[in-house]
Amino acid sequence: MKIDNSPARGTRDLLPAAVAVRDHVLSTITEVYGRYGYQRIETPALERIERLSGGQGGENEKMIFQVLRRGLPERVEADTELADLVDMGLRYDLTVPLARFYGQHRGELPTPFRSFQFGPVWRAERPQKGRYRQFYQCDIDMVGEPGMLAEAELIEATTQALNRVGLTGTTVRISDRRFLSTLATEAGVPAEEQDGFFITLDKLDKIGWDGVAGELEKRGFGSEVVSAARDRIEALGEVPGDKLAATLADVLPSLPEVVLDDLATTATCLSDIGAQNSVSWEFDPTLVRGMGYYTGHIFEVTAPGAAGSVAGGGRYDNLIGRSLGTDVPACGFSIGFERIVDLLSEPPARERLAVLYDNEVPASTVLATARELRGRDRSVAPVGRSGKFAAQLKRMEAAGFTAFVHLRADADAGALEERPLRDD
Amino acid sequence: MKIDNSPARGTRDLLPAAVAVRDHVLSTITEVYGRYGYQRIETPALERIERLSGGQGGENEKMIFQVLRRGLPERVEADTELADLVDMGLRYDLTVPLARFYGQHRGELPTPFRSFQFGPVWRAERPQKGRYRQFYQCDIDMVGEPGMLAEAELIEATTQALNRVGLTGTTVRISDRRFLSTLATEAGVPAEEQDGFFITLDKLDKIGWDGVAGELEKRGFGSEVVSAARDRIEALGEVPGDKLAATLADVLPSLPEVVLDDLATTATCLSDIGAQNSVSWEFDPTLVRGMGYYTGHIFEVTAPGAAGSVAGGGRYDNLIGRSLGTDVPACGFSIGFERIVDLLSEPPARERLAVLYDNEVPASTVLATARELRGRDRSVAPVGRSGKFAAQLKRMEAAGFTAFVHLRADADAGALEERPLRDD
Repeated sequence: MKIDNSPARGTRDLLPAAVAVRDHVLSTITEVYGRYGYQRIETPALERIERLSGGQGGENEKMIFQVLRRGLPERVEADTELADLVDMGLRYDLTVPLARFYGQHRGELPTPFRSFQFGPVWRAERPQKGRYRQFYQCDIDMVGEPGMLAEAELIEATTQALNRVGLTGTTVRISDRRFLSTLATEAGVPAEEQDGFFITLDKLDKIGWDGVAGELEKRGFGSEVVSAARDRIEALGEVPGDKLAATLADVLPSLPEVVLDDLATTATCLSDIGAQNSVSWEFDPTLVRGMGYYTGHIFEVTAPGAAGSVAGGGRYDNLIGRSLGTDVPACGFSIGFERIVDLLSEPPARERLAVLYDNEVPASTVLATARELRGRDRSVAPVGRSGKFAAQLKRMEAAGFTAFVHLRADADAGALEERPLRDD
Repeated sequence: MKIDNSPARGTRDLLPAAVAVRDHVLSTITEVYGRYGYQRIETPALERIERLSGGQGGENEKMIFQVLRRGLPERVEADTELADLVDMGLRYDLTVPLARFYGQHRGELPTPFRSFQFGPVWRAERPQKGRYRQFYQCDIDMVGEPGMLAEAELIEATTQALNRVGLTGTTVRISDRRFLSTLATEAGVPAEEQDGFFITLDKLDKIGWDGVAGELEKRGFGSEVVSAARDRIEALGEVPGDKLAATLADVLPSLPEVVLDDLATTATCLSDIGAQNSVSWEFDPTLVRGMGYYTGHIFEVTAPGAAGSVAGGGRYDNLIGRSLGTDVPACGFSIGFERIVDLLSEPPARERLAVLYDNEVPASTVLATARELRGRDRSVAPVGRSGKFAAQLKRMEAAGFTAFVHLRADADAGALEERPLRDD
């Protein structure tokens, strides 16, 4: 009987080589954030369905995997709403759980609380190539720090983590939601329509000004709004860091002074970080980022050879506090773990020795030999002889062994010769 | 508005101190198995519901969290079975996924394949103290190795991993399903009733011989069956290792010779391991283990101070191959990760330095100071001054900081004095 052993639709298995790359990236990132004082927390995969559907998840709330209540009868009663059958769902991000976690445990956590999260999230997406229904997110957040130190520290730690993983020459693109709001207001977009305006502006990279203008017209914005916004953005296009404040004040006279001060602080801190981590940064007036909850700086990190961004985040001062009935300042980064893993193909080399043993050799002798050869940086595993010798060596090489010793039934116990399996 | 921030019923959040203990245990275990050539794999949390309900999961199949299909209408149609609404479920163990994984990827995996798995599983249990609906399992399996080398290597690696985690003086209790089957047959239990017989025998630890006899009578076994089994088990009670084979052959004349040979091999290997890992072992004729799929040796590891076992496993030669239509020998261990973590309270000590800064100090100076002080084995995090000084030091200590420097607004840049936060 042939049985289908493939993983469930839209999910995937991870084989040892893939896991080794992932573990390497994760341990590098964990180590860097650890040195910056970030502490890992963990929340359950399942959350109450009301929490997941509370409006903080944006479009992701349409993609919740819903879990049936425990102990339902096998037959559904007449006139049942689907919602009546469900009490929990799988989390679609790590931000909604963080807000709940902080609300629940605030009294046991330091201020500021430096949080590091890594774990799977699930989205009921239409299956398509390269998109999975389970994938990992890696979020770093500083909760309770109102000052710009949060932004600068997060950018420093994140670019250093990316550097250590092998992504060098990164660029940090920075903008600010308060800047965007002033820009929209000056261009004639009323406050309540700005979210839609930003969603279109966010596509500038992909569809250009003609595309943006077309889409904004469909959304009901006049051509004078589009050209007012475009003029200002183009005037800010490629302003060098030391001219940024003057140009911003000039182009957007109504920009609150605090935004200029914050950008100046960021600029000072980032020039230090740049020297340290070989990153450059730029102010990008077209950067928007998707989620509506940002309130201050927003940022994305791009790396040479990687399409799109490898990390992104920003300040979101109103989200965490919603479940506490008070504002709690917060700033965070999400590292594009799956994207970064895809950019790296090779796990770090590790010596893997096979103890190839003739089948007449007693198990206790095989194990004692392996035990003798095993070392801190060397993995050693017994493999029984089978089939043609040369073919077996090929199979061992394919399995990732780097060398072998041959433990023969007829040999005296003596020094074993280690032989490499790779011709390099 | 007061919002409920507690995690979903039966689940829990893990705070930094708990995660630190777990990460320490996991990295220790991972390191040991890595040196033995075990490679980590990962399967998705969601599996097709038919796979989870296929009969390999025993009692656990009654506790599947079922996930609704994507894109169902909001109102359930009349005459709907609950099963029609469900296409996936959350895995309840790591063994059923391993069997599917091996069936799917066998061609890409070495023989034998040394598998290491670590991840959450979910069970829709009635909520009760100390039982969670999400918990982690840690499974180590050798797939494709028919010989006793598998058992001995798994016991060696596992006892070493437990040792490194701090569980010393462990005892390995060993039995064998073929032995149990011979015992039951000689006591007069027909093959098709042996599963029920074993389920009761498994309770001997808890309910004693009187309890076992009572339960066996309820299951329809006569008192002559009970006393025949009891006589044999008691004759094997405390047999020293070097007398085991002779006594077994004497007490159970129909025991197949291969079982005696296998036990002899195990005994030889385990005496080597004992010297290495400071573990002792014993043959335990009352050891049964719950799952029905075991076919040969079964084992459990106990540790001083831990109720129940901290790890257990055995040989299961017929399970992995079911989805391939051929037998695939396999032997595995499951480490009781949650139980072990509960036994250990303290994470490994780590130096954590706070840069306590007066709020007038510029962010760039704070960050530069922290950067300077940060090191490979030392985490450094800025903390802004707030409230009374002594009270803030208390809070920093409670948050896990071990020392601090005070960065004053009025001080000249000079050497900062590091001061300990703990009085020890």
